[in-house]
Amino acid sequence: MSRWKITVEYDGSVFVGWQRQTNGLSVQEAIESAITGFTGETITLHGAGRTDSGVHALSQTAHFDLAKATDPDTVRDALNHHLKLRAVSILTAEAVTEDFHARFSAKRRDYLYRILNRRAPSALDHGRVWHVARPLDADAMHRAAQSLVGNHDFSSFRALRCQAKSPVKTLDRIDVSRSGDEIHISTQARSFLHNQVRILTGTLKLVGEGTWTEDQVYTALEAKDRPAAGPTAPPDGLYLTKVVY
Amino acid sequence: MSRWKITVEYDGSVFVGWQRQTNGLSVQEAIESAITGFTGETITLHGAGRTDSGVHALSQTAHFDLAKATDPDTVRDALNHHLKLRAVSILTAEAVTEDFHARFSAKRRDYLYRILNRRAPSALDHGRVWHVARPLDADAMHRAAQSLVGNHDFSSFRALRCQAKSPVKTLDRIDVSRSGDEIHISTQARSFLHNQVRILTGTLKLVGEGTWTEDQVYTALEAKDRPAAGPTAPPDGLYLTKVVY
Repeated sequence: MSRWKITVEYDGSVFVGWQRQTNGLSVQEAIESAITGFTGETITLHGAGRTDSGVHALSQTAHFDLAKATDPDTVRDALNHHLKLRAVSILTAEAVTEDFHARFSAKRRDYLYRILNRRAPSALDHGRVWHVARPLDADAMHRAAQSLVGNHDFSSFRALRCQAKSPVKTLDRIDVSRSGDEIHISTQARSFLHNQVRILTGTLKLVGEGTWTEDQVYTALEAKDRPAAGPTAPPDGLYLTKVVY
Repeated sequence: MSRWKITVEYDGSVFVGWQRQTNGLSVQEAIESAITGFTGETITLHGAGRTDSGVHALSQTAHFDLAKATDPDTVRDALNHHLKLRAVSILTAEAVTEDFHARFSAKRRDYLYRILNRRAPSALDHGRVWHVARPLDADAMHRAAQSLVGNHDFSSFRALRCQAKSPVKTLDRIDVSRSGDEIHISTQARSFLHNQVRILTGTLKLVGEGTWTEDQVYTALEAKDRPAAGPTAPPDGLYLTKVVY
């Protein structure tokens, strides 16, 4: 038996999310089927981040165990061959020791949120960005976001259906910057609550358009109550960009 | 009667190309229909570059004449409203004088060709890049490309069905660089021959993978014969990025 770590890119818009569900095809199921097609073995794939439907990944990490003896290049190429869907691609594969766990060994997860901030909708990135026509002040969004950095009770920034035992998380970093017509929100933490980045984004957008003052973001955090924060931004603009071990 | 200049973004993979054709929907027809939907007028739209099927635009330029009195913001927003397809978007609209012609007044056209150069296929950019698995040497491609800069007979780099009167063109600039897993080929000229950028790209790829020496690119140019150059790269990776007046 050997343990394999893979990194995966996917277009979240064609899946019900990372995790296996009864109502449609998940990324997990698509890759598990490819592994079975390659090896004949029925396995369980463990992912580092359980992204929601519509959320993309530039580099998700997952692991699985195989009885079959093989090598990294073969694992990557054979899985890509068996993945019928173009919406998912195995970037790398490597053999790891048995104590590696994609979810529990992760030390940091990086997410990027892309807002297309211009009048015209996107022709090339539909479903890949959140289109906000009203001009946003990225500098004000960045300043307001800094009050969220550190160890806090993020109850205001947590989906009502979030299953985490504790609402307390440490946000290591959040940076908001403009790049042409896009606003990029980059976040880093050991782990996030359900919808945390999307609620942070929906809240910072209120600051960017001038509906909220910068101080109101910290007030919302202190309220420890979901309705105190802004709306949940759509999944379209969210990317899991990196998992660090 | 007033003349309008518009800039347009589109995903070429859903169109038969820029120009109106009988075998499917063109970008030209999609926008002309939106203009008729907005104004009730039947007009002809003139584009700066007649991109082929599958070729994208970050900023194509076009012009048309309207009897209706209106303003730039209304033209842009109304056309985007009437464009049912998400694959095309009007970025800007401005009133211009009658001597402006999108095609004949253009002083320079910029194209970008994106090659995804890694083992794994693309999950997020399928149809938007040319996937080349074999490692390419971008520096060698850049050096070889410099022999093409200037005024030359580009018969070797011209589709057999090209309708231009002369094969002589001036290539102002061509730069090849690597950005992570992508190789970008940026070209600038007053105008290009049919498939010129795609044949340049298919030829430089031979140098990048080591099949051709750098010198062979100039030898192919001197041959003035299409079979002397490399194959035509697919349309997927090609973008019209800018038209300068």
